[in-house]
Amino acid sequence: MAPTPSDLAFVPFVSVDNMMALVHHIGVETVLRDLAEAIEADFKRWELFDKTPRVASHSEVGVIELMPTSDGEMYGFKYVNGHPKNTREGLQTVTAFGLLADVDTGYPKLLSEMTLLTALRTAATSAMVAKHLAPKGASTMAMIGNGAQSEFQCLAFKAICGISEVRLYDTDPSATAKCAANLAGQGVRVVACGSAEEAMEGAQIITTCTADKQNNTILTDNMIGPGVHINAIGGDCPGKTELHRDILLRSDIFVEYPPQTWVEGEIQQLNEGHPITELWRVISGDAEGRRDDKQITLFDSVGFAIEDFSALRYILGAIQGTAFFVQLDMLADPDDPRDLFGMLQRSKR
Amino acid sequence: MAPTPSDLAFVPFVSVDNMMALVHHIGVETVLRDLAEAIEADFKRWELFDKTPRVASHSEVGVIELMPTSDGEMYGFKYVNGHPKNTREGLQTVTAFGLLADVDTGYPKLLSEMTLLTALRTAATSAMVAKHLAPKGASTMAMIGNGAQSEFQCLAFKAICGISEVRLYDTDPSATAKCAANLAGQGVRVVACGSAEEAMEGAQIITTCTADKQNNTILTDNMIGPGVHINAIGGDCPGKTELHRDILLRSDIFVEYPPQTWVEGEIQQLNEGHPITELWRVISGDAEGRRDDKQITLFDSVGFAIEDFSALRYILGAIQGTAFFVQLDMLADPDDPRDLFGMLQRSKR
Repeated sequence: MAPTPSDLAFVPFVSVDNMMALVHHIGVETVLRDLAEAIEADFKRWELFDKTPRVASHSEVGVIELMPTSDGEMYGFKYVNGHPKNTREGLQTVTAFGLLADVDTGYPKLLSEMTLLTALRTAATSAMVAKHLAPKGASTMAMIGNGAQSEFQCLAFKAICGISEVRLYDTDPSATAKCAANLAGQGVRVVACGSAEEAMEGAQIITTCTADKQNNTILTDNMIGPGVHINAIGGDCPGKTELHRDILLRSDIFVEYPPQTWVEGEIQQLNEGHPITELWRVISGDAEGRRDDKQITLFDSVGFAIEDFSALRYILGAIQGTAFFVQLDMLADPDDPRDLFGMLQRSKR
Repeated sequence: MAPTPSDLAFVPFVSVDNMMALVHHIGVETVLRDLAEAIEADFKRWELFDKTPRVASHSEVGVIELMPTSDGEMYGFKYVNGHPKNTREGLQTVTAFGLLADVDTGYPKLLSEMTLLTALRTAATSAMVAKHLAPKGASTMAMIGNGAQSEFQCLAFKAICGISEVRLYDTDPSATAKCAANLAGQGVRVVACGSAEEAMEGAQIITTCTADKQNNTILTDNMIGPGVHINAIGGDCPGKTELHRDILLRSDIFVEYPPQTWVEGEIQQLNEGHPITELWRVISGDAEGRRDDKQITLFDSVGFAIEDFSALRYILGAIQGTAFFVQLDMLADPDDPRDLFGMLQRSKR
């Protein structure tokens, strides 16, 4: 009979099934608001974090990335892939999981699915940023690209920014129909549109979230009126952009972590001298966000490790005292730490 | 009632308990030989791999590292910490886990504990390298440092290099006693020694594996006679070395991945112009290993991602058709990949 692993050997694991149950238990809009709050708090102490561009392994069909960061007390990383062609094979474009560990001991403290959690944190980040940059009183959002991320974006902008109407457009009408059906009864007016131009009618916020691995022009310059806030979240790897360069030249551009955004974001299309503003400076009151109601603001979002860290910390707190996790026997924990071999020997059945 | 996750959502997970059971099922010496073979095969196709120095997050008390690599078909990474002070708190200095994923889809294919597996692969690598570098007919090994790694080293050198006597020394006699007790009945003669000098008497191979996070001099120059092979595995992070610099100057030095070893290995103590040989060249027949029986060969081992990759691939093969794993519901897998939100909604109980 093998010895029972001690408490130290266990790492709480939140499966997809438990993540879904946890989200329903708390309520999806509350989760989005809580996540926005957690992410905003970590943006305010941005300088404290160990920051590094993600470590990417590219292949012809996609990318696998590790996104580590640490605030000196906890260490976190996310594994995430991006394979646009997966959809055609009935697989997810993006799957992800993440880990939190204690910096003082190096012992993992949480393993969690992050496919759902990434969708939630991306939407929460977008809406939290829009709270700082979008025109006051914005009530309508155009949602260009109606894939897996779109409903989360719409609900986050409703829950966090008070958006009451979303105008949907996708090159594939069945994606729009799916998004509209999922948003029915969620307390937001949904308008399915036949073109990007139609979707942008009356919208103060424009969210683009398309998933082709190539330079694309989802929005052209003549489509963008003064005063809007653009939330561009689909361009997130080298060679993948969504906006025409002329839009960038008319916009004030806000980014998460410049060394990463220069490589992966819309600003790939600009010279590195071009002025950009780091969001954490706006959020901590160091830099100006929106100046006036004519200005076009652009959040060139690629996703950053600190947002995942904030999300994992939130989940670690949220599962305490609940049944929404299982314990994984993931760490060897011999009685005498020097006696790993003895532990192996004694386990012989 | 939540929908049952599909097969695509599951990732096989090998817990510590299952890893121990698997090792006993196959036999520890067979596992060591199989691992040495798998690692040697991957060293032979070294140029094919994506290589990057590990991504380290240092704190005052330790380090947390991610070690990714890919051969173009599979992607693997290991999470590993190094916290020498942990032992004093009843914790492991090193804990680890690893993941393999399919490059074509980005989907994880195996999650495994790697605390035990790292001990096994480190020992298998050491012995596989010694097969190429140690003097012919070597029968005696000095084992300096009798911590968690020591028994694995001794057994690997027995199983792979035919070592029949191990001579143990540690500054802490209780560590030596533990190691000697664990090796009793394993088919190798064990001699507990009162000094490093005594341990090295008659030894053709000297393995050093100590764990202080500082520059140390476990071996000084006058202790090393001609013709020996030194297997130095304890110096593996910046500022942590085990050998006196003069030993390095008399040795032919072999390393895994130079950009990493220059930062973490014994050769931190040398100028970057100093000649070193990449092991994969020796193993694939491109470079000379041992030339004569006077030469001192030194394997300046820091551990490299490809060794973990080989080990994970071996485990993925070994668990097929066995019960030594469980399926983790780690990946969201909606029927329609674009319908992540719909999956969440439908899971509402």
